[in-house]
Amino acid sequence: MNEILHTRHYLNASECNAQRRISLPLLVQRLIEIATDHATQLGVGPADLRVNSLAWVLSRLTLEMKAFPSINSYYSLNTWVESINRHFTERCFSITDGDGNPLGYARTVWIAIDLESRRGGDMTDIMAHAPLVAEPCPIARGSKIPTVTAPDLVRSHRFSYCDIDFNRHVNSCRYIEALLNDRDVEFYDSHAITRFEIAYMDEIHYNDLVEIRRSTTGNSSTYEITRDGNPATRARITYS
Amino acid sequence: MNEILHTRHYLNASECNAQRRISLPLLVQRLIEIATDHATQLGVGPADLRVNSLAWVLSRLTLEMKAFPSINSYYSLNTWVESINRHFTERCFSITDGDGNPLGYARTVWIAIDLESRRGGDMTDIMAHAPLVAEPCPIARGSKIPTVTAPDLVRSHRFSYCDIDFNRHVNSCRYIEALLNDRDVEFYDSHAITRFEIAYMDEIHYNDLVEIRRSTTGNSSTYEITRDGNPATRARITYS
Repeated sequence: MNEILHTRHYLNASECNAQRRISLPLLVQRLIEIATDHATQLGVGPADLRVNSLAWVLSRLTLEMKAFPSINSYYSLNTWVESINRHFTERCFSITDGDGNPLGYARTVWIAIDLESRRGGDMTDIMAHAPLVAEPCPIARGSKIPTVTAPDLVRSHRFSYCDIDFNRHVNSCRYIEALLNDRDVEFYDSHAITRFEIAYMDEIHYNDLVEIRRSTTGNSSTYEITRDGNPATRARITYS
Repeated sequence: MNEILHTRHYLNASECNAQRRISLPLLVQRLIEIATDHATQLGVGPADLRVNSLAWVLSRLTLEMKAFPSINSYYSLNTWVESINRHFTERCFSITDGDGNPLGYARTVWIAIDLESRRGGDMTDIMAHAPLVAEPCPIARGSKIPTVTAPDLVRSHRFSYCDIDFNRHVNSCRYIEALLNDRDVEFYDSHAITRFEIAYMDEIHYNDLVEIRRSTTGNSSTYEITRDGNPATRARITYS
């Protein structure tokens, strides 16, 4: 059993974004993949939880990057469980280049929901045998993201078939794509994402019509995705 | 040097589509990745070609699947070069389950274009040292896909930031997503893709407005993506 799961990846050209780096959605996808693999190694993977009618839900993700892995280069990911309480568990990540130099860190908050009641299970039971690791993750925890009151952009959006995941909800990464798509390709030539926070509050399903609202202050944009006026996701992106 | 590149993959739950299988776009992404890796092993990867101001372009892909790899299971991919002539090279793939049982096959046609003239290079020079392999790939080559004359669906579409690849064109897989998104999630519960053909005819760029036209006969749909009335991509999807 690895207390810290370490994986090494090669960033193939065909995976890169227009800036010839890993995209934020693909990096988040990779983090979710290794979180899932590590949970499985610890005996609390999706298949283990399913036996008790439970499923992992990513509730919150916070990430800070000095630089994103670049085209045709190796990068490494590390993940470990930092804390467990009744309501949620915190899982951390570090992202390094091929030589082990830090590129960034991420923090995630996970809950396990009962597939029938949709209520959260007691994490201290579920994670009773998971090792806690006191590895440094030197980024601030995600803070409460406020509602968007004075938007500089409002648009409606409908998620499509390819946005839907195996749980029949919108894939966690496709929310992020919908937010990034509010800017044009030239914006990302001159702006690098340095910090990203997202809070998944309610599940969005196939063909749901949502509204995306954005407000921008300085080099930081706050987003809210609402359905029928209720917040489903909030996010904040800080650029350099 | 591997004449046939063999790779083994685990289909993580977080990568699956609503039918709890690998999606067609993600499978095509994996095929492009291992094609790129194999080309690099053979000394004709993107970085090698770039020295001579050349770049690989996927011109055509044909794929037949008995079944797509399913959630939380291993699958394997094999790729090899089947033929080379002045104008293009043919690369084949087999897809097997974790036990080596065939799930499907794919054929691709690649050209190397000069980055300045946008013309094709002489493949017999570029691929002079590549080994040809006479491994069976028992699916019919892609045939000419006709224009769509009597569409049952016409819609306009604009590709967004996250659809753009490192060459600043629409990512090959994002065309496929745009086509699949014309059907709802329930359609795919009752219809499995058994054969897929796509011909990339012209590059589409960020913010290009395109028209997607579809015609359906029996269990087969033909698609055309046009820009300013000119065909950019044609595709055919056959369902069971």
